[in-house]
Amino acid sequence: MCVTFPRGFQAAAATAGLKPSGKPDLALLALTREAAEAGRAASAAAFTTNQVVGAPVVVGRRWRERHLEGGPALRAVLVNAGNSNAATGEQGERDAMTCAAETARLLGCAPEEVLPSSTGVIGRPLPVGKIAAALPGLVRDLGCGERADDASARAIMTTDLAPKVARASCAIDGREVRLGAIAKGSGMIAPNLDAPAGVPHATMLAFVTTDAVVRPRALHAALARANEGTFNRISVDAHPSCSDTAVVMASGLAGHAPLDLGSASFGVFGEALRNLCLQLAERIIIDGEGAKRIFRVAVRGAASDTDANRIARRVVDSPLVKAAIHGGDPNWGRIVTAAGNAGVAFDPREACLRIGPVEVYRGGVPRPEALADRRLRDAMSGNRVEVELAVGTGPGSSWMLGCDLSAEYVRINADYTT
Amino acid sequence: MCVTFPRGFQAAAATAGLKPSGKPDLALLALTREAAEAGRAASAAAFTTNQVVGAPVVVGRRWRERHLEGGPALRAVLVNAGNSNAATGEQGERDAMTCAAETARLLGCAPEEVLPSSTGVIGRPLPVGKIAAALPGLVRDLGCGERADDASARAIMTTDLAPKVARASCAIDGREVRLGAIAKGSGMIAPNLDAPAGVPHATMLAFVTTDAVVRPRALHAALARANEGTFNRISVDAHPSCSDTAVVMASGLAGHAPLDLGSASFGVFGEALRNLCLQLAERIIIDGEGAKRIFRVAVRGAASDTDANRIARRVVDSPLVKAAIHGGDPNWGRIVTAAGNAGVAFDPREACLRIGPVEVYRGGVPRPEALADRRLRDAMSGNRVEVELAVGTGPGSSWMLGCDLSAEYVRINADYTT
Repeated sequence: MCVTFPRGFQAAAATAGLKPSGKPDLALLALTREAAEAGRAASAAAFTTNQVVGAPVVVGRRWRERHLEGGPALRAVLVNAGNSNAATGEQGERDAMTCAAETARLLGCAPEEVLPSSTGVIGRPLPVGKIAAALPGLVRDLGCGERADDASARAIMTTDLAPKVARASCAIDGREVRLGAIAKGSGMIAPNLDAPAGVPHATMLAFVTTDAVVRPRALHAALARANEGTFNRISVDAHPSCSDTAVVMASGLAGHAPLDLGSASFGVFGEALRNLCLQLAERIIIDGEGAKRIFRVAVRGAASDTDANRIARRVVDSPLVKAAIHGGDPNWGRIVTAAGNAGVAFDPREACLRIGPVEVYRGGVPRPEALADRRLRDAMSGNRVEVELAVGTGPGSSWMLGCDLSAEYVRINADYTT
Repeated sequence: MCVTFPRGFQAAAATAGLKPSGKPDLALLALTREAAEAGRAASAAAFTTNQVVGAPVVVGRRWRERHLEGGPALRAVLVNAGNSNAATGEQGERDAMTCAAETARLLGCAPEEVLPSSTGVIGRPLPVGKIAAALPGLVRDLGCGERADDASARAIMTTDLAPKVARASCAIDGREVRLGAIAKGSGMIAPNLDAPAGVPHATMLAFVTTDAVVRPRALHAALARANEGTFNRISVDAHPSCSDTAVVMASGLAGHAPLDLGSASFGVFGEALRNLCLQLAERIIIDGEGAKRIFRVAVRGAASDTDANRIARRVVDSPLVKAAIHGGDPNWGRIVTAAGNAGVAFDPREACLRIGPVEVYRGGVPRPEALADRRLRDAMSGNRVEVELAVGTGPGSSWMLGCDLSAEYVRINADYTT
C-alpha cells in the first residue's frame, strides 16, 4: 500500500481514452468522508518555476494562496496523463476548472477543494468530455488498499516503465504517523519546484498522503524543504516541465497534537517526508527515459551550497558526461571541464576528483596510475556511479543525481507526439 | 586555398602519432620570413571561459597580454590533435612551452612568438617527444597553396567528418585584403570565448589568417565582436571545452594604411572577419557530432539581447527539443517550455512561436490548424529548421544555432577514450 496506507484516504483509476495506448490515464486521490468531516485536514503544494505553466498549475497556485489564508484544504487530486493541458491559454484553465468542478460535484465538496493535475503532450486542448464521462465510475471505484494504490500509480505514468510508490512512518507523541506516495517521471525531468530562480531545471508529478496533523504553513514549509533536498536534486534531461507538481495531503487523523513550525516534533515529520520524497526521486532517476545507470555527483569545498549545486548540476546535465557514463568510460576530463562551465570560479589546482574509491585527479594534475586501476572500471560499470569533486576548501557542498544518455533516450524523444 | 590565401603565410601538416587512427595530427601555420621581417604583423586570440583550461590556453593568454603591451605578434601557431594537454598541471605548461620553443628554434624566432594549441583527450600527458620528432619535417614542408591548406585543415580534426575551411576578401583603400581560415569541431562545442561569464557554453579551434594591416588592439576588438555573433552562437552539446581558441594572424602585407579602432575602414574589415567566422561556425554545427540537421532559434521581443540569447540558448540546448528536431517532430511545446526555463521572465500570453513559415502558438494558445499544415512538416524535415520565438515587445533579440541529438551522438561519446 502507498497512498491509502495513511488513515483517511481513498484512491481509484480509470480509462478516459487520453493515452494512445488505451491504458488507464485518470487517477483520483481523495480524503474519505470521515477525514473531510473531521476538519483537521491540511495540504501543501509546490509547482514548477517554468515561465510557461500548465493550466492546472495556474489553478493550483490560486488554491494554494487561498489555503494559506485560511481557505479549505484539498479534498481530492484529479490527475490525468496523456495531455498536459499546457500552453492552452484561458480555455485550458476553464477546462481544468470544469474537471475539478465535476469531480467536486460527485464527491459533494466545493470545486476549489479539488486540485486538477495533468501530464502529457503540450499544446493540445484537454478532452474534457472524455474525462467527464469517466468521472462517475472513477468516484464510484474509490477504495483503499493495494489494488487501488497500484492502479492510481499506473494511471499517472507516461513514458515510465514502472510505477513509483513509497511509504514511510514515524512516531509523534507516541502515535504512528503514516506517509504514502505515488509519483511519475520519466522525461522532461529536472524539477525546480518553487526554488530560487536562476537555476532552471521536467514533468514530475508526486502526490503524498499522510495522516499527520499539521498546520498548512508548516506543511508547506516541510514540503519546500523536502523538495530542495530531493526532487530539486534530480535531472534526467535538464528541462523542467511546465507541469512539475508535488502535493501533500494530510488527513489529520493520526491523533497527535497539531504540528506547527515551532513544534518539537515538526522536525521528525519533516525528516520522514524528506525520506519519502528521496525514495521517489531516486525511483524517478532510475526510470529516467532510456536510462541504464544513474550517477551521483557530490561537490564540496565551494564558497556556498548554491555554488556547489550549480557545479553538480552542470556535471549531471552535460551530454558528454552522460554519454561517457553510459559507455562506462572513465573519461573524467569531461567531468572537470563540465564543472568549469558552471559559472562558478574555482582554482583547478585545488580541485580533486574521485570516481568511486579512485582518485583520478588532484591539484590540477591527473593521477595516471588511476586509469590502470581495476576499481575504476568497476566503479564505472555498476548500476550507480559515485562521483566526488572537491573544488577548494570552502564550506559549500551539494549533490545532484542524474542518469546516463542512451540511444534509447533519443529514440523515445524523437517521435513522442507523432 | 584558405589559410595561405592571404599574402605572407605558409602551412604544413605532419603525423606525430597522437591519433589512434594514425592520421596526420600536427599542423603549423606560419608567417613567411618576408612577412615577419616586414614588421607590420599583428595577432589576436580569444580563449575559453571555462575555469579548467588547457595548458596552451594558459600560455596563449600570457602571450596575448604581452602582445597588447607592445610585445611581438605571432610568427606561428602549432596545433596538435589527439591530446588536449588539459588538466595536466604545470608539467602540461612546460610541455606546451617546449613544443613552442622547439618550433621557434626551427623557424628562427623567439619562443614567445609561437602559440601552441591542442585538442583531444583531456588529462593525459602530452607526448612531447613524438611532437618534437615530427617538427623538423613539419617546418621543412611549410608551403603555400591548396595542398598545404587542406593538409593543415585535416590535421587538426578530431571527430570531425570533414575539414572546415573558409576564405573571404574585402577592399580597403583600393587594395584587396584577403582572409582565410581553418577550424575544427565537432563535439564539446558551445564556445564562450572571452564573453561575459554566467552564460557558459566545446573544443572549437579556429585559425584565421589575413594580410590586412591592423593594430593589435583593433584586431582583438574585431575578433571579439566577430566571436560574439558567430562562434559564441553555436552549441552542439552545451559543454564549452577547456581548449576553445580562436586566433587571427595578420601579416600586414596588403599595403593599405594601418587599421585602428577609429579608422573608417575598420568596420569593413570587421564585417569581412565576422562573415568568415560565421561560415566556420555554420560548418562546425553542420558537422556536429552525430548531427543530421541543424536548427536556428531566433528570439525577439525580450527586454535585452542578453535575455534573448539566454532563451535561445536554452532552446538549442534542450535534449528534448534536439531529439524532436532529430525526429522531424513538430513537438513545439518543448520549445516554449525550454524557453520558459531560461531564468528570464516573460508572459506566455505575449509569446508567439513560428516554425518555418507556420505560426504554431500565439498569445498563450496553440493554433490547432498549424499541426495539419503541410508546410510545418516540410519545415521540420529539411536540413535546416528555422524557429522564431517572440516573447514580448521588448527591444532585445538574439539567435543561436544548434543541431539535432541522435543515437550516433551517443555512440560517438559513449566510448571516446576507450
